[in-house]
Amino acid sequence: MIRLAEQSVRVQEAVARARERVAALHAELPRNELVVWTAGNVSERVVLPDAAEGAPELFVIKPSGVSYDDLSADTMVVCTLDGEKIDDGTADALGPSSDTAAHAYVYRHMPEVGGVVHTHSTFATAWAARSEPIPCVLTMMADEFGGDIPVGPFALIGDDSIGRGIVETLRESRSPAVLMAQHGPFTVGRNARAAVKAAVMCEEVARTVHFARAHGEPPRIDQAQIDSLYDRYQNVYGQASGSSR
Amino acid sequence: MIRLAEQSVRVQEAVARARERVAALHAELPRNELVVWTAGNVSERVVLPDAAEGAPELFVIKPSGVSYDDLSADTMVVCTLDGEKIDDGTADALGPSSDTAAHAYVYRHMPEVGGVVHTHSTFATAWAARSEPIPCVLTMMADEFGGDIPVGPFALIGDDSIGRGIVETLRESRSPAVLMAQHGPFTVGRNARAAVKAAVMCEEVARTVHFARAHGEPPRIDQAQIDSLYDRYQNVYGQASGSSR
Amino acid sequence: MIRLAEQSVRVQEAVARARERVAALHAELPRNELVVWTAGNVSERVVLPDAAEGAPELFVIKPSGVSYDDLSADTMVVCTLDGEKIDDGTADALGPSSDTAAHAYVYRHMPEVGGVVHTHSTFATAWAARSEPIPCVLTMMADEFGGDIPVGPFALIGDDSIGRGIVETLRESRSPAVLMAQHGPFTVGRNARAAVKAAVMCEEVARTVHFARAHGEPPRIDQAQIDSLYDRYQNVYGQASGSSR
Amino acid sequence: MIRLAEQSVRVQEAVARARERVAALHAELPRNELVVWTAGNVSERVVLPDAAEGAPELFVIKPSGVSYDDLSADTMVVCTLDGEKIDDGTADALGPSSDTAAHAYVYRHMPEVGGVVHTHSTFATAWAARSEPIPCVLTMMADEFGGDIPVGPFALIGDDSIGRGIVETLRESRSPAVLMAQHGPFTVGRNARAAVKAAVMCEEVARTVHFARAHGEPPRIDQAQIDSLYDRYQNVYGQASGSSR
Repeated sequence: MIRLAEQSVRVQEAVARARERVAALHAELPRNELVVWTAGNVSERVVLPDAAEGAPELFVIKPSGVSYDDLSADTMVVCTLDGEKIDDGTADALGPSSDTAAHAYVYRHMPEVGGVVHTHSTFATAWAARSEPIPCVLTMMADEFGGDIPVGPFALIGDDSIGRGIVETLRESRSPAVLMAQHGPFTVGRNARAAVKAAVMCEEVARTVHFARAHGEPPRIDQAQIDSLYDRYQNVYGQASGSSR
Repeated sequence: MIRLAEQSVRVQEAVARARERVAALHAELPRNELVVWTAGNVSERVVLPDAAEGAPELFVIKPSGVSYDDLSADTMVVCTLDGEKIDDGTADALGPSSDTAAHAYVYRHMPEVGGVVHTHSTFATAWAARSEPIPCVLTMMADEFGGDIPVGPFALIGDDSIGRGIVETLRESRSPAVLMAQHGPFTVGRNARAAVKAAVMCEEVARTVHFARAHGEPPRIDQAQIDSLYDRYQNVYGQASGSSR
Repeated sequence: MIRLAEQSVRVQEAVARARERVAALHAELPRNELVVWTAGNVSERVVLPDAAEGAPELFVIKPSGVSYDDLSADTMVVCTLDGEKIDDGTADALGPSSDTAAHAYVYRHMPEVGGVVHTHSTFATAWAARSEPIPCVLTMMADEFGGDIPVGPFALIGDDSIGRGIVETLRESRSPAVLMAQHGPFTVGRNARAAVKAAVMCEEVARTVHFARAHGEPPRIDQAQIDSLYDRYQNVYGQASGSSR
Repeated sequence: MIRLAEQSVRVQEAVARARERVAALHAELPRNELVVWTAGNVSERVVLPDAAEGAPELFVIKPSGVSYDDLSADTMVVCTLDGEKIDDGTADALGPSSDTAAHAYVYRHMPEVGGVVHTHSTFATAWAARSEPIPCVLTMMADEFGGDIPVGPFALIGDDSIGRGIVETLRESRSPAVLMAQHGPFTVGRNARAAVKAAVMCEEVARTVHFARAHGEPPRIDQAQIDSLYDRYQNVYGQASGSSR
């Protein structure tokens, strides 16, 4: 078992910063009404300093079944990319989120991804219940998702099938969000903050398009215009890159 | 009439702890948007210490018609399993919730139940208005409810008919929630906290499935997969048992 | 013009208490999501002390167009039952709510009413837009409203037609709420707090029944059962009378 | 490039006041649930003192891609009516909102407009997705918007086409709000506060009419009655003019 205490000070500091960020970002989930009770989780890949060659690849994730009020940097769980909890010298009794295997699979197979978020947010999950992709009918969808938000396969928890379904679906899309069938959305980003933003925007467009089509089907935006909006937003918007992925 | 002052110190302490827990859990109802005004109530069976043989079986419940802002451990009402208020030496003017008889019936007939919650949460009540069970179309429903959320009979307040309807419906289901027809949801759990969690999750799935079917009927999950998800969640999830019942 | 400074101390104290209550109750409107911006208003009849024979009949109401953040007891406006602002020695620049004439008409013609509330709460107003009464399909509607929530006529602001529409509709119903066509709900109660409760409950049942019928028409409760629930609730529920009217 | 430090003290003070107002008004957008994450923006034309003849025409707007928690008067960006950021001696690294060109176009072509707001609020955007105007079926719509809320053309970001679409649509209407097709609402007012009020009211009527027509089409109010309500509200309501435009 990997022991955090045996790693270099720089690795320990990188883990500590990731714990802080991941704990703070969990507060965005209830604040943006994406989760109830203990559902939903955020993780972030530990960014290793250049001098840390040979250090283990790690990510930080929410502990399982703990209330959002009781989350803190100390209670976050540190795992290897195989989803195994390491000996971090704290929070011994707390196991990682039951969705850890899916997060780990994404980090192993998508090296560009630095953050993963999973929720059961109401409207994204409503589309997932019907296994229906969200059509790109709004400029903000073109901006953020570059097209439709795709649906992944139905998969049971317990092995790699959820992780594999996420990765295979995202690889065929520009979207940082995937709706896992009858389950709920997973989002990715270059870091945990970007993945949380994608989760917030995914629920917002899921809700808006849900209500839009109640009184007539809104038209899909032309692909050339989607491409134009997506390219501009990913390259120009914000003070730095606006990309969630 | 039973007088709390005549019970052993240990019984009095057990009552005091239940009062604290039940008062605190009431705050979860407005926080999770399950109630408006004074509607909704939480109760918990008093767990007697081993040495308290012969002590009366009691539960603690919300007083009737009191605003959520004015609730405290002191205002909670202590009742026997017949739903009679005992002489607890405090809060003399406050009667127990008008739903006390239903809670008491559940405690008398379901010894495994340690907590009961009743709300009129919007979407669960909308399904109840149509006397329609919520079909198990989401993995989180399989996890938490082990299948559909069933409907209980239409019953008027004033005798045992609501309590009997709850118990008879729950006995034929794995669900910790029942939608009483044209009335609203009742949930149970091994303690009051688990029953509150079931009430939160019941409203969440009622809302999500409501919106899911607005644009096409989502398929029910296969029974074998429901069983697999339910068994795993009840036995593995969380730091301790995730069961609400 | 009536001058508050010329009234007895007891009348002045009764006005001061009503100002405090009405100002505090306005906070319940945004808290219960019944209003946006400056919309919505609460008023209360000033309860005169027994010794105040010959004192003018007054009520207290929100000033017009003032933000909810800026409301205080001092900014509340005191009016006669003709809807004329009296000289209360404070807040000289603030006129009463533009709905004052409607409130005044209710106080003149319904002596049992001590409080009036008007909002444009979303779901009650949605029913009002279609001029459709809310059918009594839930036990909590039977409890609180004693049957359907009725619709009043379309009426323009500027004379007595809104007030007359409210009074004529309420007189033919047990409901403390009326949906004014294409406008929004008005509610009454024995005091302002009871009228606010009726406004909260009116929106809650408007929302629940709206969603209930999206997937099939829920059945109306039998009239005899409505009567039984209503009688019990009005006479037994709560620590005192639960009546909103 | 215009340098703020080279302007008169009075101009500098007018800019400072506009920064304060615009920063504070941004808090109304999440508070009224009109935006998620960093979406949405408020701007205000700088009102120049009489003695400032020859001073440049300016407006103040949100910086691009900055979280609502991190906004302050200092981070607001000052632009000319061509949408060019001036050298204001602060916040050097922050560029103006990506919607700045649209705001600038409105200020150049509508001299009576002193404030502009853009959001993607859920229900207004749902109508925009279908390019469907919101019909005037409620008295509060007649009051505030003087008729239907119109739809503007589909336009891509990057040149004057959004600004031109807003101005051309608003010129043919009394409404201070326009729904830009497949994009979202823009609102205007005599100052930023009035434009924010129009954005709040636009979402409120978009939501209410959305739900109203779910169970039958509500009738449009007669034009003569709309005119009567609009005239009264714009001239009488509130302590000063209630006009948003």
